[in-house]
Amino acid sequence: MNGNTFGRIFRLTTFGESHGPGLGGVVDGCPAGLELSESDLQKALDERRPGRDGRGGSASTHRKEEDRVRLLSGLFEGKSTGAPIAFYVENKSQRPEDYDALADIPRPGHADLGFLVKHGLRDHRGGGRASARETLCRVAGGAVAEKFLQTHGIRLAACVLEFAGIAAIPEDIPGARSRPWFCPDGRSFELWEKAAQAAANEGDSLGGKVLVEIRGLPPGLGEPVFDKLDARLAYAFMGTGAVKGVEIGSGCGAARMKGSEHNDRMVPADPVGEKLCLLPGGAPYAFASNHAGGILGGMSSGAPVLVTASVKPISSIAKTQHSLNLRGEMTDLRIGGRHDISALPRIVPVLRAMAALCAADFLLLQRTARI
Amino acid sequence: MNGNTFGRIFRLTTFGESHGPGLGGVVDGCPAGLELSESDLQKALDERRPGRDGRGGSASTHRKEEDRVRLLSGLFEGKSTGAPIAFYVENKSQRPEDYDALADIPRPGHADLGFLVKHGLRDHRGGGRASARETLCRVAGGAVAEKFLQTHGIRLAACVLEFAGIAAIPEDIPGARSRPWFCPDGRSFELWEKAAQAAANEGDSLGGKVLVEIRGLPPGLGEPVFDKLDARLAYAFMGTGAVKGVEIGSGCGAARMKGSEHNDRMVPADPVGEKLCLLPGGAPYAFASNHAGGILGGMSSGAPVLVTASVKPISSIAKTQHSLNLRGEMTDLRIGGRHDISALPRIVPVLRAMAALCAADFLLLQRTARI
Amino acid sequence: MNGNTFGRIFRLTTFGESHGPGLGGVVDGCPAGLELSESDLQKALDERRPGRDGRGGSASTHRKEEDRVRLLSGLFEGKSTGAPIAFYVENKSQRPEDYDALADIPRPGHADLGFLVKHGLRDHRGGGRASARETLCRVAGGAVAEKFLQTHGIRLAACVLEFAGIAAIPEDIPGARSRPWFCPDGRSFELWEKAAQAAANEGDSLGGKVLVEIRGLPPGLGEPVFDKLDARLAYAFMGTGAVKGVEIGSGCGAARMKGSEHNDRMVPADPVGEKLCLLPGGAPYAFASNHAGGILGGMSSGAPVLVTASVKPISSIAKTQHSLNLRGEMTDLRIGGRHDISALPRIVPVLRAMAALCAADFLLLQRTARI
Amino acid sequence: MNGNTFGRIFRLTTFGESHGPGLGGVVDGCPAGLELSESDLQKALDERRPGRDGRGGSASTHRKEEDRVRLLSGLFEGKSTGAPIAFYVENKSQRPEDYDALADIPRPGHADLGFLVKHGLRDHRGGGRASARETLCRVAGGAVAEKFLQTHGIRLAACVLEFAGIAAIPEDIPGARSRPWFCPDGRSFELWEKAAQAAANEGDSLGGKVLVEIRGLPPGLGEPVFDKLDARLAYAFMGTGAVKGVEIGSGCGAARMKGSEHNDRMVPADPVGEKLCLLPGGAPYAFASNHAGGILGGMSSGAPVLVTASVKPISSIAKTQHSLNLRGEMTDLRIGGRHDISALPRIVPVLRAMAALCAADFLLLQRTARI
Repeated sequence: MNGNTFGRIFRLTTFGESHGPGLGGVVDGCPAGLELSESDLQKALDERRPGRDGRGGSASTHRKEEDRVRLLSGLFEGKSTGAPIAFYVENKSQRPEDYDALADIPRPGHADLGFLVKHGLRDHRGGGRASARETLCRVAGGAVAEKFLQTHGIRLAACVLEFAGIAAIPEDIPGARSRPWFCPDGRSFELWEKAAQAAANEGDSLGGKVLVEIRGLPPGLGEPVFDKLDARLAYAFMGTGAVKGVEIGSGCGAARMKGSEHNDRMVPADPVGEKLCLLPGGAPYAFASNHAGGILGGMSSGAPVLVTASVKPISSIAKTQHSLNLRGEMTDLRIGGRHDISALPRIVPVLRAMAALCAADFLLLQRTARI
Repeated sequence: MNGNTFGRIFRLTTFGESHGPGLGGVVDGCPAGLELSESDLQKALDERRPGRDGRGGSASTHRKEEDRVRLLSGLFEGKSTGAPIAFYVENKSQRPEDYDALADIPRPGHADLGFLVKHGLRDHRGGGRASARETLCRVAGGAVAEKFLQTHGIRLAACVLEFAGIAAIPEDIPGARSRPWFCPDGRSFELWEKAAQAAANEGDSLGGKVLVEIRGLPPGLGEPVFDKLDARLAYAFMGTGAVKGVEIGSGCGAARMKGSEHNDRMVPADPVGEKLCLLPGGAPYAFASNHAGGILGGMSSGAPVLVTASVKPISSIAKTQHSLNLRGEMTDLRIGGRHDISALPRIVPVLRAMAALCAADFLLLQRTARI
Repeated sequence: MNGNTFGRIFRLTTFGESHGPGLGGVVDGCPAGLELSESDLQKALDERRPGRDGRGGSASTHRKEEDRVRLLSGLFEGKSTGAPIAFYVENKSQRPEDYDALADIPRPGHADLGFLVKHGLRDHRGGGRASARETLCRVAGGAVAEKFLQTHGIRLAACVLEFAGIAAIPEDIPGARSRPWFCPDGRSFELWEKAAQAAANEGDSLGGKVLVEIRGLPPGLGEPVFDKLDARLAYAFMGTGAVKGVEIGSGCGAARMKGSEHNDRMVPADPVGEKLCLLPGGAPYAFASNHAGGILGGMSSGAPVLVTASVKPISSIAKTQHSLNLRGEMTDLRIGGRHDISALPRIVPVLRAMAALCAADFLLLQRTARI
Repeated sequence: MNGNTFGRIFRLTTFGESHGPGLGGVVDGCPAGLELSESDLQKALDERRPGRDGRGGSASTHRKEEDRVRLLSGLFEGKSTGAPIAFYVENKSQRPEDYDALADIPRPGHADLGFLVKHGLRDHRGGGRASARETLCRVAGGAVAEKFLQTHGIRLAACVLEFAGIAAIPEDIPGARSRPWFCPDGRSFELWEKAAQAAANEGDSLGGKVLVEIRGLPPGLGEPVFDKLDARLAYAFMGTGAVKGVEIGSGCGAARMKGSEHNDRMVPADPVGEKLCLLPGGAPYAFASNHAGGILGGMSSGAPVLVTASVKPISSIAKTQHSLNLRGEMTDLRIGGRHDISALPRIVPVLRAMAALCAADFLLLQRTARI
């Protein structure tokens, strides 16, 4: 794994800055024979687009980002050929002049100083490589991964679990895809909307939590001792901008449980309904609870995989801030431009994509586990 | 990164099972010229040894694990040569017969079924590769990394932050190294000790939280967009057995903060005392708070790096459990052997080692950031 | 290293087929601060363009390939930022219909059957991913690498050493860049031209040898025991289409020498003229001969690095061939389309680019060799 | 791929110096279920042992190297478990004092100066990490790979093809294993023996060529465009000490052939005798010739894979040499110790092992080629 490449077999390499010509990526290692089209990627990208159809509500800006994706390689007659699949999205409607005042002041909460110190120079326009626009490459790559997972009966779902301290009930995670705010119930998004408007009025920003679920993952996926399924998910999620905490199953709550509570008992499963996990002898099994979040010893257990990400409030706020400039003087800082109130709900499809990339890679690695 | 290799430049590859001949590892990519001896590794290993000198208190077993480490390569006249540094610890005092009854029942909370399904067979003795003994290789490898970091003025510290729901005050993290339970204050370990004894009496187990701090890290370390410093730390920590949540700085708490609260303001720093971070123009800077946990945009900011791991209660409990056997029948399960009440405090030096491995790797990668 | 990624730190990932929308690549790990422009890449691409200005003479087709390269990311104000540098070349003037007759017959000497068996399907148009057009991505990526190497005083040169069994005298390798056929002397290209015309008249094709030289490489580059400088060069060259043999220095001839002949004696060097290699104590040194080709024990020695590639004749010949079709029947095969008589001289800039990619990567890795 | 790790899925990491405690390695990614024992590795190691049973004849020393290998992990009840397989060989009968005189003079043809310049220090005893003893780790790792390949009907064979300019006829490559000098015919080794004795009398050394053959490889193995089967074999072979040229099939000879000669025609195959390659429709095929050496477009074609390595004469010769010392003064150099006259025939099992490691890795990677 490298700075701009994710995965060992199913690998995504991305490029592009918010104010350069465009952004894109290369999916290498996608198996041949996968039906794929530009509209598969476009649909996924549309879900993270800001200001659209009320999904993001007041949390996201009204910037018009019409991200049209083009597939540049790797397909023949509608199917993947095994060659790298490249995609590209041109940048449009960028306003670099919004950022000119910021060249000299590292914005609190941002990567500005880090890049400057690391590289000796930085592209200050819109965060450059650190812009949230970078995540569209994750979404496009994840769409390829998810298409591959679907051919193996693996299904992902993702939702906002909490916003501004207001928790939703995850009663219908798959349904969140068609609700405002990727809300897993029919109510909480109205409260979230109000909280977002209030924060907007204050010139402030808000954070929250996202839950991603993977169903249908065969047991045994993951590569202990280091490259465990939970390790890689944590890597993928924590490596997504604004995420400051990652939890598997009961997560941090597990620290306060007893072993007798946390251990998920295996129980016989009823062979009706959805695809069952089988013991080596053929008997179907399930778990009486899922505190482990579907991962035991770093490998999928057969239960749904559950990952929660805690997302910090957006660092670019309208309120005046007081911080150092590059000459070491305290300065008042006003961040112009059009900024979201929160990375939620737009981060939902991004984290879903990262989970898909993890699952696709481990599914392929699994094929090498036996002689 | 692979199943059994951690890192890109400074790389640790480990091997060994709890009931095989022994465990060990190979550190590849350690720069030449580092003063190193077996005692550097031995001292680190001694810190994770169970039942010793009251450090682990009642939480760890009284198994006598005398882990003597040997260095097998990579040194000449007391210094690293740039060649791989291999180390080895022989297994002694193992009692495989403790596990014979368990060959047929996947223990709740364990990797047993995962390995069996993945590989078609498994070494059931003591968890095999999934044994907590595996972590001694992390500690030994981490000791090499930490020795290297010291030559650059980078210092690590780690402590138990919470046990059985009882939080300590992290008023002296470096001092935790010499206190019982790696306790960061002078009091909490007594309450922890009582909680551990109570759990032992019930035949149950307990979890808690560990805090690791890295000081002196130059700003700019980390390789966005995927291989960020926080991403890699999350990978390293979540990939350590029993960890179910990883947080950076304010962590999950950030989800409930406003941007104006979470943003850490930069302020001028007083050029006295410890090594200061400098702006490109030469002015020293600091942060008025550290909600970000020393990482901005996936790179070190100059503030201390703070990572918290939430550790689940040990899954092997003395209490009778009720679960499926491999034939799909519900069975009463009694786990014999000598098991810890908690992975804490023994996991403290393990996570410290993982943090050292991350930091060493990024420190070397950083050297390639400019022409 | 992966199917479509080359390098560990300085990494090139490529994509694209001869008859898809286009080809391109991503250079990740290029240090920040490098002056770079589209024209740097364009100039390099122009050197491998067929039918141009007599350079390729009668060996290459008169297909008009106007490969205009665009830089898509990684630059700010004319300098690399440390972010991935992506480039793209649109495909034009492709004639897929030339290949329709070949969908059913694996062409002798080609990857056709391999891809079909591997992936279950293949893009038969122009060889798809196996087209020689793929090499333009190597040239573009290599141009970035070479620009970086120049900032460290490292210079590459490459020439045709032999064609159709007619050897040139490598009396002026750098000058080959401006001679027809990348010829290292002022004469041989005329004989080569005649041989190429004769082969064209017969409907046949020809092979030859290419020599690449790297000067100014600091000693010690290379990562034994596996990732040696010569190993990586062999990997890079043998992995370039049509290369069937790779030699370092005296190469295969070394098999017939005695140790006393092959060993290159070190001698004092005269501190005039070009940059000298210094012993640890400061005394300049040189070698009395260069049978080793500038590489000892897998590391650069300070002498010029010399690599020779033996290139097979182009497999697509105009002559009728007799081979199996996919149904297992012997068939007469006539390959239409516009094909080169030889991969030489067009492969010269490609191999130069591969050498540059190797050198850039090891130059960066070298920075991690000492504490 | 890293300095001391070879392979992507089936990975060998090695460690150890000639005069340290010992040498060993870790095989990670070996699929579970492989029957394996210490004697599998020991048998392979015995083949590269010097001075044994006339196999190496007068070319190798009479040093007594009793290399007893121990397996340290990764096995349970005689089968691989999927966990890393570590092995270790203790160093015995080393005589470091033989090398004391050499600490100050970089031996011609050796890595001495390279390591010193790279790392700032070096272990001068017996070449340290650059000792030919390092290759025993390759042989041990290759033995695991070959055992795995055998379960898939893949067979390797290797022989000396030429020594001191005297070529053998490769009429029985598999039989070479049981002949002196790994000789592929019944005669040449007698001439080789005489040449070796003559060189010994002169205090000089000799080189030669080795041929490795892989049979039964399914077509389509290899990962274009960079990680091709031939590329990786070239990497593996050129990265083995003393190899200066690598050729596939007709190799360098291809440079002088015409396309109509070099192209191997596909022909129907007679379904008797050994395992046949099948076209997608089921018809068996073969090739009328094998100039390509079993590799087309970087993937196995179904024909036997043929790789030739040209091996330079051993650089440590008994004759007095004249070279620079570290202070830059010309010095007479006499290399003491017990040195081989040639790396042949001992390098034969080493290159066979490297070929096995390549094949095992690509065989596993191939499983990820289709959805």
